Amino acid sequence: MRNGDQVLNQVLAVASARGLRDLRIAASSLFPVHAPLVDHIRNGVVTRICTAYMSGPVADAVSRGLLPTPVVMQTHGGRARAIEAGELQIDVAFVGAPAADRCGNISGAEGRAACGPLGYAMVDAQYARRVVAVTDHIGDYPLVPIDISQEQVDFVVLVDSIGDPAGILSGSTRPTTDPVSLQIAETAAKVIAASGLLVDGFSFQTGAGGISLAVSQYVQTAMRERKVQGSFGAGGVTGYLVDMLEEGLFRSLFDVQCFDLRAVESYRRDSRHQAMSASLYANPHNRGAIADQLDAMLLGAAEVDLDFNVNVTTGSSGRILGGSGGHADTAAGAKLALVATRLVSGGGPKIVESVGCITTPGESIDAVVTELGVAVHAERVELRDRLLRYGLNVLDISVMRSKAIALAQEVRATPEQGRRIVGVMEYRDGRVIDVIREVSHAR
Amino acid sequence: MRNGDQVLNQVLAVASARGLRDLRIAASSLFPVHAPLVDHIRNGVVTRICTAYMSGPVADAVSRGLLPTPVVMQTHGGRARAIEAGELQIDVAFVGAPAADRCGNISGAEGRAACGPLGYAMVDAQYARRVVAVTDHIGDYPLVPIDISQEQVDFVVLVDSIGDPAGILSGSTRPTTDPVSLQIAETAAKVIAASGLLVDGFSFQTGAGGISLAVSQYVQTAMRERKVQGSFGAGGVTGYLVDMLEEGLFRSLFDVQCFDLRAVESYRRDSRHQAMSASLYANPHNRGAIADQLDAMLLGAAEVDLDFNVNVTTGSSGRILGGSGGHADTAAGAKLALVATRLVSGGGPKIVESVGCITTPGESIDAVVTELGVAVHAERVELRDRLLRYGLNVLDISVMRSKAIALAQEVRATPEQGRRIVGVMEYRDGRVIDVIREVSHAR
Repeated sequence: MRNGDQVLNQVLAVASARGLRDLRIAASSLFPVHAPLVDHIRNGVVTRICTAYMSGPVADAVSRGLLPTPVVMQTHGGRARAIEAGELQIDVAFVGAPAADRCGNISGAEGRAACGPLGYAMVDAQYARRVVAVTDHIGDYPLVPIDISQEQVDFVVLVDSIGDPAGILSGSTRPTTDPVSLQIAETAAKVIAASGLLVDGFSFQTGAGGISLAVSQYVQTAMRERKVQGSFGAGGVTGYLVDMLEEGLFRSLFDVQCFDLRAVESYRRDSRHQAMSASLYANPHNRGAIADQLDAMLLGAAEVDLDFNVNVTTGSSGRILGGSGGHADTAAGAKLALVATRLVSGGGPKIVESVGCITTPGESIDAVVTELGVAVHAERVELRDRLLRYGLNVLDISVMRSKAIALAQEVRATPEQGRRIVGVMEYRDGRVIDVIREVSHAR
Repeated sequence: MRNGDQVLNQVLAVASARGLRDLRIAASSLFPVHAPLVDHIRNGVVTRICTAYMSGPVADAVSRGLLPTPVVMQTHGGRARAIEAGELQIDVAFVGAPAADRCGNISGAEGRAACGPLGYAMVDAQYARRVVAVTDHIGDYPLVPIDISQEQVDFVVLVDSIGDPAGILSGSTRPTTDPVSLQIAETAAKVIAASGLLVDGFSFQTGAGGISLAVSQYVQTAMRERKVQGSFGAGGVTGYLVDMLEEGLFRSLFDVQCFDLRAVESYRRDSRHQAMSASLYANPHNRGAIADQLDAMLLGAAEVDLDFNVNVTTGSSGRILGGSGGHADTAAGAKLALVATRLVSGGGPKIVESVGCITTPGESIDAVVTELGVAVHAERVELRDRLLRYGLNVLDISVMRSKAIALAQEVRATPEQGRRIVGVMEYRDGRVIDVIREVSHAR
C-alpha cells in the first residue's frame, strides 16, 4: 500500500506493546509512512529487514547503521522466489485488505482503500504459515471477484483504517512537460520504434515516472500509426496503459499493483485487465514469468555507470533511497531494457564512473537514453546498427559521462562510508551482487 | 473432461508404446470413454489408481479384481487435500486444456472443447512436479482471462483433439418430468423452505440429476416469492444456477466445473461466476472451503441405510459404478445435507438395511426425502420439529425401508463377493472408512 499503508505500523505497535522482540520484517516495500519502525528498530522489536524498496526515515536509519543486521534488498521477483523456495519463511503475513468477507476472501477492487490487484501479497498469502487479513471494509459473503481466497486466510481483523488512499495510489502522476525530459522520452520511443520489436504482439512496461509516462504516449502514437496490436502491457499499471488497452493497442494488461484510480476502475470491470502475483510477474525460478516475456522495458536510474550498471537503491550520498522493485527483474527479462535518464540531477552527474551500488547489472541493460542521444551496450551490436540506420544519435557511454561532468555543478566525491555493511543486494536469483555500507552519522 | 476426455487415453497409449510399466493413475474421475485403460491394467502399464469417481469398463475391471492393488476412492476435497499434504505426489500432470498459449497459460472458456473452470486440474497444476498442458487450440499470447497460469506449466503439447464436447458437457440434462420424482423434488424444496435457512444469504448446491434440477426450480420459485437474495450457488454449475444468478437470486456462483454450455458462456462473461479449485471447493484441511459454507446441499444416492449412510460408489451387485465426487465433502460441510431419492430403482429397494459401501457417513446426512415423505436423522431434533410444524410428512427411515421392500419387485440378496479387497474408501480427511470387495467374475 506504499506511502498510504497503515497496517505495518499498527501491527508493530501491537507487537511492541506485547513485548515481542527480535522480529524480522519482510515487507515488500517500506515508505516514509513507516517512520515508526525506526523506534521499533531502536528498541530491539525489529532486528532484521528484507524488502524490495525502502525510502524515508527507515532507509535513513538503516543507512546510518541502526539495524543490527544488514537489510536484505531483494527484487520483486526475487522476493517471490525466496518465499516459494523456502529461503524466506513468512511466519505471519498481515495482508492489508481493501475489502474482505467473514471467511477471508479478499478483494483489492472494493472498499475505501481500493488499490487493485494485491500482486505482492498473493505470494505471502499462499506460503505464509498464518495469514491475517487486516481490513477496514467487511463486505457480504462471498466477496467476488476474489483476489486472495478464503482457503489461504486464517484470520480477518477489522480496523478503523488500513491506509490513506492518497498515499496508496500515486494518483497525480503525469507525463513530464519539461522540454529536456520530453526530448529524452521521444528518443526512447524512437529506440523502441527502431528496435524491430514494435510489431503485432509487442509487449511493454514502464514505471510511473514522468519520463516513462511520456514514453508511453509516444509509443501509443507509434502503435496507432503503424496499426500495431500489442499483446500486453504490464506493470504497476497506470491509466495510460488502460487507455492503450481500451483503444485496442494492447489485447491485455498484467497488473501486479495499480498506480492510479483509473487503473483500479479498469481492473474492476475489464477481464482483459488481469491480476498477476509477484511470482507470475517476475520470479525467475517458476515456469515462466511475465517479465521474461517483455519486449520493451523502460527503466529509470539514480546512477548509470560505464559498464551500464544501474543504481536505483542508493543516492549520491550513499544513503538508501529506493531499491530494485521490479527493476532488475524486468531488465533481465525484457528483450529491450532501456534506461531513460537526464545527464544530471540535483546538480550532480547521473552517468558515473562506477555506481555506488549495483541494483541491476549492466549485462541486463541494452541502452541508455539521455538528452544527448543513445548509448548502446557493447554486446548489442545489432541494436546499435538498427539505431544508426534509424538516424538516432548513438554515442559511447563515456561521452555521456564526460558531458554529464561538464554539465554538473559539482562532481561529488565518493561518499564517505564506513566499512560496516548495512545492506546486501540480493539479485533475483538469490545471489548477493553488491553490498551497501554505513554512511557517516554527520551526513 | 468426463466422458468426452481423450487426453488420458492418448497419454497412456504413448506411455505404453514407450514401454513404461507400473504407472499410478491419479485421475480426478474415470468414465466409460477410458475403456482402453483396461488393457493397460492387463498389460502392467498401470498398476495403481486413485480417483474420486469411476464408471464403465474400468470400474467393472477393477470390481472384478483386474488391478493388482486396491483402487483408492477419494472425494474431490480429499484428493485436493492429499495432493497439498504431499500424500499424493503427482509426478506429471497432463492437463486437458481447451485453449492454451505458447507459454502455457490455460483457459477453459475458449476453444472447441471449452468446458469452463478447470477446478480439478488447478490443484494438480499447482503441486505436480511437471505440468503438461495438452491442447487442441493454441491462442495468441497471452490468453486472458487465465484459468491456470504459465508460471505453473512446463510444457504445451498440441494434439488433434483433447475431447468430444458432447461428452465433456452433459448438455442435455433436464429437470425430471416424472410425477413421482417431481413429488420428491417438491418435498425436498419444502424441507429447505422449512429449515430456516432460506433467508438472505442462502447458499445452495445440487448435482445435475433430474431430481436435483427440479429441486432447484422449486427453490428458485420459493426464493422469488420470499424475496430472498442468496449469497452463492455452487457446484458443478448448470444453466439453471446461471438463471438464478442472472435473476439476482444469488449474488455469485462458485464453479469447479461446468455441466452445460450455458454455464460455460456465463463463466466466460460474468465476473460474479467465479472459478474455484477443488481445494477451495472442498479440501477440509485448507483455511476454509466453500463446501463448508453451504446452507443446503441436495444429494443423490444409490443406496441409503437405516443409519443414513449413503452409497454412491457401488451398485446393488457390489460393482463399482460411481464414487463420491463431492458427495461426502458437501454433505459434511452443508448445514442441511439432504438426500433425495426414490424408494426403489430398477426393481430393487434403495433404502437398505446397511449400504454395501459407505461413501458418505450417515452422521453427515440430515434428512432423506422419498416419495413417502422425509426421514430425519435422529440427532437433528430441531430440524425434525421445524418440518413437523411446516406440515411435512416426517417418518422413520425404517418405515421407508419397509415400504421400499414392499414396493420392490425383488429384494436382492447381499451380492456375492470374494474376500479380496479391490478398493478402499478414503474419506475427505484421509481416513479409510470402508472397503470394496471383489465381485465374482460370473456376475
